[in-house]
Amino acid sequence: MATLCRPAVAVPDHVITQEETLALARETHADHPQRDLVLRLIQNTGVRTRHIVQPIEATLKHPGFEERNLLYEAEAKARVPGVVRQALAHAEVEPKDIDLIVYVSCTGFMMPSLTAWLINTMGFRTETRQLPIAQLGCAAGGAAINRAHDFCTAYPRSNVLIVSCEFCSLCYQPTDIGVGSLLSNGLFGDAISAAVVRGEGGTGMRIERNGSHLVPNTEDWISYAVRDTGFHFLLDKRVPGTMEMLAPALKALVAQHSWEIPQMDFFIVHAGGPRILDDLCHFLDLPPEMFRFSRATLTERGNIASSVVFDALARLFDEGGAADGAGGLIAGFGPGITAETAIGRWARAAPMAAAMSN
Amino acid sequence: MATLCRPAVAVPDHVITQEETLALARETHADHPQRDLVLRLIQNTGVRTRHIVQPIEATLKHPGFEERNLLYEAEAKARVPGVVRQALAHAEVEPKDIDLIVYVSCTGFMMPSLTAWLINTMGFRTETRQLPIAQLGCAAGGAAINRAHDFCTAYPRSNVLIVSCEFCSLCYQPTDIGVGSLLSNGLFGDAISAAVVRGEGGTGMRIERNGSHLVPNTEDWISYAVRDTGFHFLLDKRVPGTMEMLAPALKALVAQHSWEIPQMDFFIVHAGGPRILDDLCHFLDLPPEMFRFSRATLTERGNIASSVVFDALARLFDEGGAADGAGGLIAGFGPGITAETAIGRWARAAPMAAAMSN
Repeated sequence: MATLCRPAVAVPDHVITQEETLALARETHADHPQRDLVLRLIQNTGVRTRHIVQPIEATLKHPGFEERNLLYEAEAKARVPGVVRQALAHAEVEPKDIDLIVYVSCTGFMMPSLTAWLINTMGFRTETRQLPIAQLGCAAGGAAINRAHDFCTAYPRSNVLIVSCEFCSLCYQPTDIGVGSLLSNGLFGDAISAAVVRGEGGTGMRIERNGSHLVPNTEDWISYAVRDTGFHFLLDKRVPGTMEMLAPALKALVAQHSWEIPQMDFFIVHAGGPRILDDLCHFLDLPPEMFRFSRATLTERGNIASSVVFDALARLFDEGGAADGAGGLIAGFGPGITAETAIGRWARAAPMAAAMSN
Repeated sequence: MATLCRPAVAVPDHVITQEETLALARETHADHPQRDLVLRLIQNTGVRTRHIVQPIEATLKHPGFEERNLLYEAEAKARVPGVVRQALAHAEVEPKDIDLIVYVSCTGFMMPSLTAWLINTMGFRTETRQLPIAQLGCAAGGAAINRAHDFCTAYPRSNVLIVSCEFCSLCYQPTDIGVGSLLSNGLFGDAISAAVVRGEGGTGMRIERNGSHLVPNTEDWISYAVRDTGFHFLLDKRVPGTMEMLAPALKALVAQHSWEIPQMDFFIVHAGGPRILDDLCHFLDLPPEMFRFSRATLTERGNIASSVVFDALARLFDEGGAADGAGGLIAGFGPGITAETAIGRWARAAPMAAAMSN
């Protein structure tokens, strides 16, 4: 079995509130013909605060793709190890116990990926497998969980470390002034998260099944234009409506497991924006409180890309977790348009098992 | 079990010979203080011909990172499907039989990755898992095989499609004139390859074990500098000597399997350059003909990054494959410095099993 243990999450110190975001948008785009629409869309996100790696003045400057990437690397090296240590502690494992590191990040590019540096500097074994994923965007949090589940299914005594490092503010593009871009400027935030999937023992969500679903012919709804100035995030206005297409895929996966959504106890989903959560309530016939963890992540931190599912899951742990045996679902949504979904049951490590694993 | 079936490989039509490469280097870098060293290094690669997606005149121009990436996407969409169809035919499977697509490429960047387009246009199921890997460089061919092996170990009836698309010529950087860069300009070539790993049945290498190894503190020996002009490949002069460090890791993995290298029958390794192959002969105490497939790939196509192992394996198939039960090893080497190694035995599908699988 594969148990997704308590995630560790960190956000940078610089905070921007919705009021500040709106004031900035109002001023910067004073003559924009759709300014009022943009302001309304930003207000509707419900995002109250976001955390970013630089002060807002620096964030709004574009020093070039090269400098942005160097900053990404420096910030990742400064911020990831502490989060990793905490995730390992939560799962009661040591670096030497980790067999695979899945590193997901779509907001900077390094080759070799940060996995090599982590292995070299944090005491992981030189045999640790490295799986860096850069191209699944916000769905990569779900994908990381699912590939970790696959790995523990293949090698039941193994442990997988997942690291998500998303500095969305480093993809701010001042020259992109379409409505989708201006909305994104008010939606995305920065965060680092990590979690261990244990093949044996551990307290958290014991994953029983995972699945992927691609909505046909929506490749260009969420995408990067790769330019000399770096990654330009392109968001189609049809994206907020995609839950109508993805909800049936979530239901189908649950049905394959002979479960039904109304009987399930917790839902941790990517909070790409408020409509995602509202529509899931509607199409899955669930009350809003079922998505309270994802909603809180969106409100307090914005869309933190692949880290959303870990931040939301950490909030479930903060509440004391679910009841033993409670059924739940975790889903990441992102470019493709792709959903990466895991379902399983809450499980607590027996005190003996926990002791023996140390 | 997971059987790596016969790969399909394609190279573009434009050919550049070593003589042409040397003439170009001689002319372009007439005043370079280390020109003669560079010419000697290029001669020593043993690369006779390379295939590139554009004529050499266009290859030598840098139209900007954006245009390069658009060209990457257009060329990938034009060239990948035919190779994929051939790989599926080799393995006697249909698109609907594929459960996971592993797409490896370090020479262009797309989000969503080409996996979404392949699913949409080639008849793969919308539930097909997508695993794009961009940051393992030349080691990604080995990593793709190993992750496919893991997946089939977890889900024994599944099938994995691996696609490697490497247009190294699109990473040519005219302003990089260090010795490592000029050598690389004479070493890398373009290729597309694909192979299916079947969970049941199939003829090819039945993978029994896989492993990864990171050489400590060599992160900056092979790396990309990510700049406004795209990916700049940086090659440290210590890289050709790394087999002394990696050979023990290959031996250790084989020993874990209670095998010994001298008793094994075939070796398919990443041919990063000639010294890699010479040193493996030395440190593994093997005769040069054991690496004839990788050597032929290097000679005829250059270093085609993550596609080398598939091109070399295709040559083993061209020879009629190995004997039933023959033990072999496949290893990709790349940034990290990382080795991704698989070991297993040659297996032929029983005629009945092959018939039943259709």
